[in-house]
Amino acid sequence: MTDYRRLRVALLGAGAVGSQVAALLRQHADELADRAGARLELVGIAVRNPDAPRDADLPRELFTTDAETLILGADIVIELMGGIEPARTNLLQAIGSGADVVTANKALLATHGPEIFEAADQVGAQVYYEAAAAGAIPIIRPLRDSLAGDRVQRIMGIVNGTTNYILDRMDTEGADFGEVLAQAQALGYAEADPTADVEGYDAAQKAAILASLAFHTSVPLEAVHREGITAIDKPMMDAARKAGYVIKLLAVCERVSNGSGDAISVRVYPALVPREHPLASVHGANNAVFVQAEAAGNLMFYGAGAGGVQTASAVLGDVVSAARRHIAGGVGVGESTRANLPILPIGHVTTQYQITLEVTDEPGVLATVAGILSEGRVSIATVEQSVADASADPLARVAADPTGVARLVIGTHKALEQDLSETVERLADSDVVDRVVSVLRVEGD
Amino acid sequence: MTDYRRLRVALLGAGAVGSQVAALLRQHADELADRAGARLELVGIAVRNPDAPRDADLPRELFTTDAETLILGADIVIELMGGIEPARTNLLQAIGSGADVVTANKALLATHGPEIFEAADQVGAQVYYEAAAAGAIPIIRPLRDSLAGDRVQRIMGIVNGTTNYILDRMDTEGADFGEVLAQAQALGYAEADPTADVEGYDAAQKAAILASLAFHTSVPLEAVHREGITAIDKPMMDAARKAGYVIKLLAVCERVSNGSGDAISVRVYPALVPREHPLASVHGANNAVFVQAEAAGNLMFYGAGAGGVQTASAVLGDVVSAARRHIAGGVGVGESTRANLPILPIGHVTTQYQITLEVTDEPGVLATVAGILSEGRVSIATVEQSVADASADPLARVAADPTGVARLVIGTHKALEQDLSETVERLADSDVVDRVVSVLRVEGD
Repeated sequence: MTDYRRLRVALLGAGAVGSQVAALLRQHADELADRAGARLELVGIAVRNPDAPRDADLPRELFTTDAETLILGADIVIELMGGIEPARTNLLQAIGSGADVVTANKALLATHGPEIFEAADQVGAQVYYEAAAAGAIPIIRPLRDSLAGDRVQRIMGIVNGTTNYILDRMDTEGADFGEVLAQAQALGYAEADPTADVEGYDAAQKAAILASLAFHTSVPLEAVHREGITAIDKPMMDAARKAGYVIKLLAVCERVSNGSGDAISVRVYPALVPREHPLASVHGANNAVFVQAEAAGNLMFYGAGAGGVQTASAVLGDVVSAARRHIAGGVGVGESTRANLPILPIGHVTTQYQITLEVTDEPGVLATVAGILSEGRVSIATVEQSVADASADPLARVAADPTGVARLVIGTHKALEQDLSETVERLADSDVVDRVVSVLRVEGD
Repeated sequence: MTDYRRLRVALLGAGAVGSQVAALLRQHADELADRAGARLELVGIAVRNPDAPRDADLPRELFTTDAETLILGADIVIELMGGIEPARTNLLQAIGSGADVVTANKALLATHGPEIFEAADQVGAQVYYEAAAAGAIPIIRPLRDSLAGDRVQRIMGIVNGTTNYILDRMDTEGADFGEVLAQAQALGYAEADPTADVEGYDAAQKAAILASLAFHTSVPLEAVHREGITAIDKPMMDAARKAGYVIKLLAVCERVSNGSGDAISVRVYPALVPREHPLASVHGANNAVFVQAEAAGNLMFYGAGAGGVQTASAVLGDVVSAARRHIAGGVGVGESTRANLPILPIGHVTTQYQITLEVTDEPGVLATVAGILSEGRVSIATVEQSVADASADPLARVAADPTGVARLVIGTHKALEQDLSETVERLADSDVVDRVVSVLRVEGD
């Protein structure tokens, strides 16, 4: 066996991912040494409670509650604690002591990324975070390095497994949101408090990270427009299916070119995706990131977006990279944020919409609705009118409902979000509109 | 504008890819400088004929026939000449003079990779080759870095756009091979001499590169088993479709675990892929690489596999990476080949097969055929018997053909390739078998 230099690896956190990372570092020690050109010696695992049960069989003597001392002696520090503190303080300590750091902490990077990257730049350390977006899918290196010479136009990502699982089951089984959420919780696909997933907070953090990389611009989490999936119900899912769409929670990162130069938009919301789009076939808890670049064209990256062992794969790839860099010498390569593009507020974004209305079933209604849209600078692409009863034939073109209520499904051309939202308010206030059933963006058309 | 350090970039070759690289380096100079942290100054383009027409508008004074002098003054050398010589000599000169090198030359890497990587190691230079496999799709960094801590079990890649275009059109339009090839040539999707593509040589080169990375083992091109698609005809395509498969030219790189440790197999051949497999939906000239890893699970990378501007994206990503490394300092990170796994000859590989036979339509034939298979240690999974006439109902289970010829389609369980090929020879020699129509492997089941 080659007599490799030893690198001291400290692990912070031993949850689902951390336990797997520790176990694989030990099980595959010889193999990883051959790949890294250095022996990766796990010198300790900092946790709150060293006696808590773990997902992997790890020697008790590795565990400590003293993260600070552990960090001080390490060449590489892996932060898998999650949350902002003490993760932030510990990462900054690690960087300050000259270690390279590996983290899967999307919340931390999305909120304190610039501080952490700046600290690493100061001392020439490197921050690795392949596991912080889209789990096991290699997306950070492709965006950071492989596409560094291209101009990314748009990213559409399914980056949250829990919501994709829920929406996929609602679509394929015709189940309702609450029902599927309860099952997802029972199966461990969703947390007891599902807010971070279903309200889009997790996806928004990943969107901020992906957009920062893609557009060479620090994108703060506050600049990401965010909507969750809790308003998506069975009738909306059914209507989407009938219209040739599926509803997916998308992270959309978009470059917008206008007269005064480029700007970007970063947003997370449930959107209608055409059935034939590659993202429509991403089922279950899987993730996928669809990238459109000026030169490269369309690319897609697909795989498991979460899971302890899957995410551990991405973390270990980073650990091997960090070790190789230690052996090679030189300073770390900082983040590329010099493009510093302006970030558009959601009102300035243009997309296509599908507006579903319940209207009074009488002559002239369509003309009134069309007039309101036209005044609001929202141009109509398609209109479908049917009886409002969801159980009735949705293809019935002519409303002949004894209750006197018809349903209008309006597909728009690209419109400005603020025009659209003002127009929807005017529609809601109109005498001929009983109810705005749903307003959904269409992406990927 | 930031006053960046200047790095001198030399380009060797100005064909479809080279012209785009040169044009983009100049058009996006400021943007690329911001990303790289260095100004990438294109100092010259070495070509055979400086006055030849180019795909991009480039100043005449950049062109030279003197590659050696150009290389001597460069920090980064981009080799896009293709072929073995003088590309090999020029790349070694560049490395010897201390430059980092970027190449898209799959033929060179598949045949002289170890020599080039060894030369780079000696002087601490780095070789970048994202464009050498699967064109614009970032697959080199994911395998080399992101998955460096995982254990790749298998890669199935559609890595040749020309053959995928041909097979896809044969499948979707029911066209025959020669007809589609002629069209592909007329459209520029296939070369006038299509041998490198249709005989699988191009795919085999890429398979050698991908397998070397995935298994941390130098895989010489000679160790890649290679079969092309010229024997695939319309009846085979039709039969595949009816059985729920599509025929794709696959590069399969597989880790095989047995009692005495792991070995690998690398092979390129047309295979039956189940319609529901993600690779089955890769249409036209697109490429996709499906990766199964122990921890990460299933991943897929999809995009344009060729094209001047698409491939230029990958090359420019490498140039930016090389520039960042120059600024960061340190030596290059060598290739990881220390696993040095044994490579199995094709005869030792196990896969599933679909064997199509024309047999005499008389009692006892199936028993005879089954006996030959069983003697050959090939276990039958499914049998379908029909009349041989392709125009007849393929679902007719009972042969009732007045010509006295029936068709047997046998699906096998996993069998050893050498057992299978010996068995197929015995079947061909058997009195009851008129003709072995086709033998295809099934992958991705």
